[in-house]
Amino acid sequence: MKVYGHPLSTCTRKVLCALAEKGAEAEFVLVDLMKGEHKQPAHLARQPFGVVPALEDGDFTMYESRAIIRYLDRAVPGASLTPEGARGAGEMEQWMSVEGSYFTPAAMKVLYQSLFAPMYGRTPDEAQIAEGQVALGRVLDVMERHLTGREYLAGAGAGSFSLADICYLPYIEYLVATGQAQGLTSRPAVAAWWARCSGRPSWQKATGKA
Amino acid sequence: MKVYGHPLSTCTRKVLCALAEKGAEAEFVLVDLMKGEHKQPAHLARQPFGVVPALEDGDFTMYESRAIIRYLDRAVPGASLTPEGARGAGEMEQWMSVEGSYFTPAAMKVLYQSLFAPMYGRTPDEAQIAEGQVALGRVLDVMERHLTGREYLAGAGAGSFSLADICYLPYIEYLVATGQAQGLTSRPAVAAWWARCSGRPSWQKATGKA
Repeated sequence: MKVYGHPLSTCTRKVLCALAEKGAEAEFVLVDLMKGEHKQPAHLARQPFGVVPALEDGDFTMYESRAIIRYLDRAVPGASLTPEGARGAGEMEQWMSVEGSYFTPAAMKVLYQSLFAPMYGRTPDEAQIAEGQVALGRVLDVMERHLTGREYLAGAGAGSFSLADICYLPYIEYLVATGQAQGLTSRPAVAAWWARCSGRPSWQKATGKA
Repeated sequence: MKVYGHPLSTCTRKVLCALAEKGAEAEFVLVDLMKGEHKQPAHLARQPFGVVPALEDGDFTMYESRAIIRYLDRAVPGASLTPEGARGAGEMEQWMSVEGSYFTPAAMKVLYQSLFAPMYGRTPDEAQIAEGQVALGRVLDVMERHLTGREYLAGAGAGSFSLADICYLPYIEYLVATGQAQGLTSRPAVAAWWARCSGRPSWQKATGKA
């Protein structure tokens, strides 16, 4: 298998985390975003929207990180990252959808200013950050209620680590790195869940820390 | 089972279409959006973000339409709406993600102006519509290449009708209804796919035409 991506890309990191959880190895092929390689024909043939990551597994190629991690969970032997039964899987899918529909749009509103604006030499727009934090807080309130008394987002009992948890980690990693994680640290169940997930060897590996 | 939703809601219609494909019946409970029932405590207890639909299956409740249709496909007996094998399912997931990440944001940019602005007595912003159509055209180009020689988005050979196809239908239905479907009708493979999918009894039922 080959993963075409960039080590700092949030979506690439989801795929690297899922691979590490499955105990699988894949060749990492750097798509150099700084050189614009993601917009060149070789990469557009794999990913027609010109973003990373893409996956090659033999003669099968696919893209979209949340689809790739579902594929890896099905195709690669090893511990399942999908809770058992239709209800467990449904709960996981619900939280993956909450991530895509509510959590990440709010987190990205903050990160565009706190992470990307300084990278491009612009002054962060504090009003945009404040708006993003309000939207993020609403999602985190829902997560705090759900995670109270639980360990992970989906699965029976206190839950089990799943694809749903993986999807949130890259965005939280950058909220922490840019000093914008106060909404998480002030919510004890969310804070404990983040510590639990981000401490896993798979996440340490996906972020190049181990 | 109970579906809490609104008959004109795009996300409710995905769930109704999946139910009809499975040959399953569910009680439909109207959440009256015009009266603001989606923001009232009874509905917020089911769907904390205050949108429709939500599903109740016995003592199990969940929300997010794309998660609900995956749940229904697993939990309800009947023909599978997920192509066989990890690759078939992976392909379906990729096209579900393309819908959420690229297709629908572009389609909604058009629909906010062509559908919702007139509903609220505002004049549609033609510049916004034009911008949305350009973005939509880029996605439709990718779909046209993929669908050429195929019948459906995912699955072996010419493909089989799946959850991926369902996800696009509600938005296209409204693009057609508001006279904004020129990007589809001008692309023959996309146009034939839309005719094939929208002619299915399940979609006729989901939209109250049959």
